[in-house]
Amino acid sequence: MAKYSIGLDFGTLSGRALLVDVSTGRELSTAVMEYPHAVMDEYLPDGVTRLAPDWALQHPKDYLEVVSRVVPEVLKDAGVSAADVVGVSIDFTACTVLPILADGTPLCFLPEFAHNPNAYVKLWKHHAAQDKAERINRLAEERGEKWLARYGGKVSSEWMLPKIWQTLDEAPEVYAKAAHFVEAGDWLTMQLTGRLVRNACATGYKAIWSKKDGFPTSDFCRALDPRLEHVVEEKLSGPILAVGDRAGEISESGAALSGLRAGTAVGVATVDAHVAVPAAGITTPGTMLIIMGTSSCHMLLGDKEVIIPGICGVVEDGIIGGYMGFEAGQSCVGDHFDWFVKNCVPAAYAEAAKAEGINIHKYLRERAKKLAVGESGLIALDWWNGNRSVLVDVDLTGMILGMTLTTKPEEIYRALIEATAFGTRKIIENFEQGGVRIERIIAAGGIAEKDEFMMQIYADVCNREIGISGSPQACALGSAMFGALAAGKAGGGYDSITEAAEHMAKVKDVVYKPNADNAAAYDELYAEYVQLHDYFGRGANDVMKRLKAIRKKVRS
Amino acid sequence: MAKYSIGLDFGTLSGRALLVDVSTGRELSTAVMEYPHAVMDEYLPDGVTRLAPDWALQHPKDYLEVVSRVVPEVLKDAGVSAADVVGVSIDFTACTVLPILADGTPLCFLPEFAHNPNAYVKLWKHHAAQDKAERINRLAEERGEKWLARYGGKVSSEWMLPKIWQTLDEAPEVYAKAAHFVEAGDWLTMQLTGRLVRNACATGYKAIWSKKDGFPTSDFCRALDPRLEHVVEEKLSGPILAVGDRAGEISESGAALSGLRAGTAVGVATVDAHVAVPAAGITTPGTMLIIMGTSSCHMLLGDKEVIIPGICGVVEDGIIGGYMGFEAGQSCVGDHFDWFVKNCVPAAYAEAAKAEGINIHKYLRERAKKLAVGESGLIALDWWNGNRSVLVDVDLTGMILGMTLTTKPEEIYRALIEATAFGTRKIIENFEQGGVRIERIIAAGGIAEKDEFMMQIYADVCNREIGISGSPQACALGSAMFGALAAGKAGGGYDSITEAAEHMAKVKDVVYKPNADNAAAYDELYAEYVQLHDYFGRGANDVMKRLKAIRKKVRS
Repeated sequence: MAKYSIGLDFGTLSGRALLVDVSTGRELSTAVMEYPHAVMDEYLPDGVTRLAPDWALQHPKDYLEVVSRVVPEVLKDAGVSAADVVGVSIDFTACTVLPILADGTPLCFLPEFAHNPNAYVKLWKHHAAQDKAERINRLAEERGEKWLARYGGKVSSEWMLPKIWQTLDEAPEVYAKAAHFVEAGDWLTMQLTGRLVRNACATGYKAIWSKKDGFPTSDFCRALDPRLEHVVEEKLSGPILAVGDRAGEISESGAALSGLRAGTAVGVATVDAHVAVPAAGITTPGTMLIIMGTSSCHMLLGDKEVIIPGICGVVEDGIIGGYMGFEAGQSCVGDHFDWFVKNCVPAAYAEAAKAEGINIHKYLRERAKKLAVGESGLIALDWWNGNRSVLVDVDLTGMILGMTLTTKPEEIYRALIEATAFGTRKIIENFEQGGVRIERIIAAGGIAEKDEFMMQIYADVCNREIGISGSPQACALGSAMFGALAAGKAGGGYDSITEAAEHMAKVKDVVYKPNADNAAAYDELYAEYVQLHDYFGRGANDVMKRLKAIRKKVRS
Repeated sequence: MAKYSIGLDFGTLSGRALLVDVSTGRELSTAVMEYPHAVMDEYLPDGVTRLAPDWALQHPKDYLEVVSRVVPEVLKDAGVSAADVVGVSIDFTACTVLPILADGTPLCFLPEFAHNPNAYVKLWKHHAAQDKAERINRLAEERGEKWLARYGGKVSSEWMLPKIWQTLDEAPEVYAKAAHFVEAGDWLTMQLTGRLVRNACATGYKAIWSKKDGFPTSDFCRALDPRLEHVVEEKLSGPILAVGDRAGEISESGAALSGLRAGTAVGVATVDAHVAVPAAGITTPGTMLIIMGTSSCHMLLGDKEVIIPGICGVVEDGIIGGYMGFEAGQSCVGDHFDWFVKNCVPAAYAEAAKAEGINIHKYLRERAKKLAVGESGLIALDWWNGNRSVLVDVDLTGMILGMTLTTKPEEIYRALIEATAFGTRKIIENFEQGGVRIERIIAAGGIAEKDEFMMQIYADVCNREIGISGSPQACALGSAMFGALAAGKAGGGYDSITEAAEHMAKVKDVVYKPNADNAAAYDELYAEYVQLHDYFGRGANDVMKRLKAIRKKVRS
């Protein structure tokens, strides 16, 4: 009798379930649901409370709705009984954080806080705590805090501590009421099991925690703000379990929510990107996985902890037990093209695409494909949503250069794609300069899956072969693997992630090989990118930050 | 019995006639016709001969069609007899140049040259002779040619000599066959009078000629290219007459073409921008006229010749007799917004504008108007068509910076408008640093006439009052004034341009006054503009030129 595991993958705009056969890795069914409130960046659900620039919130109610909808749906679609599901595990965007009561109730569910922005989920791309991140970085540098180097020398405004501090500062009543600040993935796992468990992956990468040294000291936190002195004990308590551990089992209320049977094994949550590494069969150093979606995440295993500037973090056991897990990222990839299509593509193109019966992205790509490398004369800096690696600076903004009166939309579109590829190459070179070798690249996520044109540009720009992860739902598959791991061999699953990977991981036959002529031509353009990258990104001309500061002042 | 004069104004895309009452300046009727071949920048009229990047040609047949259409039309519309027209004069874009036979036949009319791009009219914005301009500049600098300083230290690729040299180089057979290279305005005047006369305005500003020193020496021309040694005597012969002089009178064939009576006085042609200065009543130093159309032209009278880097030229008697005429320019203003609307405005906006029953420019302006200064966080360099003043470099390209995922089309639109205003402020400051005072600004042209939003931004950015020329057809009115001048008092016109201006020139009551808060906010943004202007424009990072060179190589 076949046994199954369910992976639950929560992205920026939707959540999905994937039902997988534990012994073969076969994906039987998948269901996806968009969050009804999507990303709230202008107003709260009340429609009147306005959000300042750089805010990005979500509603935790949406996550519960997704679970209650997609889990029953995959079971029904596949004709599988909940009794044959041995385990389930969740992966989630991070750091996506919310304040909750001790019983798990999100503060935004309380009527008194319904109109308080700080009571909602701060999504990973909430960037309004930049001043806090800067003060953390300044103080950590001054004090020589050794954890700073693990994160490439900079804490991001996207992380846990700046977001908590912003809440304390702007809404002390929310801070006071919160029993915990918790990653949304851990919160949702708690909704299934009834028990709060924090995952070492998100806690390590986003909350400045390490297995060896724990969190920043109370002394450091007090120096930041006296009110923060006990933030770790008071707001971040609870066991921190390793990736691959068992968080618990489905409770009665978890069963009512999900339709799974009480007692089913539940894995510790992970960060959505990281879980895709074993799903692509990567269990040793030397291969980089790039998850390409709205943003991109670059992950890599290493034998030893080395300090690399501008990466997002290095966390022991953070991706696969027994290795250092390195992470870097680009905060704007798919988002880039969506912005472009929504704001910059003329009616004539939209009509022509419609007439041809194709998606506007496809229409643009088909035209962009006909251009030779360098033919447009354009170059862009891919910083529409700041720069995560290697500059770690959310106050950087986008730039495009080279326009003439004959510049066409498909040329700009291609330049934006190339800019994200140059950004990836910068990350790769940064790792190698730091002594972490990269022999092979595997890409996963929607773009890797669907966009041959873009993948070929990446191969040409990076001058490396790029393989493609075998599952269109790499993250959900990874979570299903961790669900099987939570069950353990005795429970119908596996006892190690490598064992699970042997049976369940997948890589496609497709390999994008660099075209030598294009690679040579891109070398020349990449040199220009690097020069502009350093000029605008490393302090020679901080015009982007100054303009952003003016913008903020004017809008406030 | 009232007497009339006709001004013929030839712009980038169309030609127009304006019928004016000589004694009152009243504009009785106007007629306009678009050039059937518009600007040819991809193919010759044969539809198969492809043009390289940076080419911009026109067909001289179009100009003849315009004359034969619009002159009879204004007479008919106003119910005026050709017998009551005392004079006519032409203003034309410059340097817009064509090779002709001794009898005036354009070489492109000959079947043997119909497929030869170099036989057509090279429009002012033809930029494919950039290498020639650079060699002229280098040699002139090496030899210390004193005329170089008159032109701000740089000859532009838009001018006569680079364009002639390109023809010699690429199509020696066209060069050999040509009896003259001539400004289109002078050629068209020749079609009316039967006699070739060159105008001092275009010859001074665009052909490196001065009343005092003549053309560059044959020694200089030989050093450029031995084949050019006698270019002045062989290809640029003919009398050079001052602005305001009489070129001749309508010939029999000129009468057949235009419907005017043989013997009617014809003025010497002028450059379209310059002729608008007296039309706005400017006959003394201290007031700058800005003609704002597809490109912008800035003109100013001065008491003495001073050397100012980066201007287009200073020509004695070039605008008004008795003064030095200074000229500067921006090569992409209205073109900018047309490019944007054609290539970057999403379907949703086009539909919304349609639903509101307004033009898309108006729709964008209404949204852009609601933004506060600095609110968009954007800044642009207005170099989509190179930079004329003060950098004199057609190989510079556009740049925009500050985009985020919430950037909206109207924000980009406004940033482009602001960029052109910053460019104008740079020109004003450059004149003042050079010792030429500017107390007042008057604007003319389509944008000045119609776009209150843009004019207010210019007033705020420049922190000066801006008046508006009184005629919507300032150039054509200026030509009509020169037509009256050609007739002379005895012929029913005037004997001096100041006298003509007293009766015929016009300024509106409208004055745009700077808003102090906006002006202060713009000071901050302008400082950013200047820093980027100098970084990309003065050699710190020649990325724009390198990308343009790559583009050219790839496309050739």
